[in-house]
Amino acid sequence: MKERGNLFILSGPSGVGKGTVRKELFKKNNNNLIYSISATTREPRFKEKDGVDYFFLSKNKFEEMINNGEFLEYAQYVDNYYGTPKSWIDKIRDEGKDVFVEIEVKGAMQVRSKVSDATFIFLLPPDLEQLKNRLILRGSESDEVINERLKTARQEIKMMTNYDYAVVNDKVELAVKKIQMIINTSRMKASRVAAEYIQILEE
Amino acid sequence: MKERGNLFILSGPSGVGKGTVRKELFKKNNNNLIYSISATTREPRFKEKDGVDYFFLSKNKFEEMINNGEFLEYAQYVDNYYGTPKSWIDKIRDEGKDVFVEIEVKGAMQVRSKVSDATFIFLLPPDLEQLKNRLILRGSESDEVINERLKTARQEIKMMTNYDYAVVNDKVELAVKKIQMIINTSRMKASRVAAEYIQILEE
Repeated sequence: MKERGNLFILSGPSGVGKGTVRKELFKKNNNNLIYSISATTREPRFKEKDGVDYFFLSKNKFEEMINNGEFLEYAQYVDNYYGTPKSWIDKIRDEGKDVFVEIEVKGAMQVRSKVSDATFIFLLPPDLEQLKNRLILRGSESDEVINERLKTARQEIKMMTNYDYAVVNDKVELAVKKIQMIINTSRMKASRVAAEYIQILEE
Repeated sequence: MKERGNLFILSGPSGVGKGTVRKELFKKNNNNLIYSISATTREPRFKEKDGVDYFFLSKNKFEEMINNGEFLEYAQYVDNYYGTPKSWIDKIRDEGKDVFVEIEVKGAMQVRSKVSDATFIFLLPPDLEQLKNRLILRGSESDEVINERLKTARQEIKMMTNYDYAVVNDKVELAVKKIQMIINTSRMKASRVAAEYIQILEE
């Protein structure tokens, strides 16, 4: 009896650098982590392979899957659909392997409403951290820029509370290290370790 | 508004090396972690200081505190009491600091029944890991020693499932590193990070 693998969702405000962090994480993938391949209706670009870069689907097929509730989340950009197929992720998790998804905030909230046992990681803009330091160092400045920034900061903090973990993307290397730490810690969960032993002892 | 500090409980079968791991963890304490001082009715030994090594209490005082429910857990060995005072830990946690307790399995289970938001770490005997490897490598040996060991292993695994995390104590250094990882990951919890930002933005 292997415990079900974990599902990690990396998300954050647009422009925070989710893609860069995710690519760096998988570049040195000694994590035993499976990257969740998205489905899309757009045409494959040069060298892109079906089942590697994306699952390339027809619009009809994609819409059929939407109607059957086969996506953990999906969105439409311009004329094309992008989505995360549920069955593929379930299959990997059932094999006891961990899956990693990188998606927009809206998509993450769709997953949140459908999956109760995923781990949600929010990538924080470094300027939120800088704002914090500025406020600490200089006291209560109150120019327009700061006020505008404070407004955005409050929105980002509100978003953050829908997640399990928050990681500042001040340096990509550091953010990747922290995400690896979250992943490694989840693998020390007693239920997971116990399941491994039980499996071996019973074989 | 600072989020309440975490309470980490390190425990495990007797003889597993809890004390050694805990001492090593605090030797290089760059963790901002507060070690929970136990209370006892035994006499201070050479160089031991009240409020540093132990809270040294009279038997009357200790029993009064038991009756008032002032211990998270306590036990009696020979003629003396040993226990973990609740109010001291609550005070530190309310200041937003993390507290670390190292106790016997029975004590940990007492804490489990009283504190809902603590993090329980089970230290696994390395021979459980060795048993696993032996079973993997040699198939199903079935001499008496292995069977006896299997019985103990099953008890240990059963204990483990009452904890949040399980860490193998194969090498002290490595076990310490893993415990630090669990502590650091808990500090990336979104609720905690958000609370920090909210505190700063509102000041």
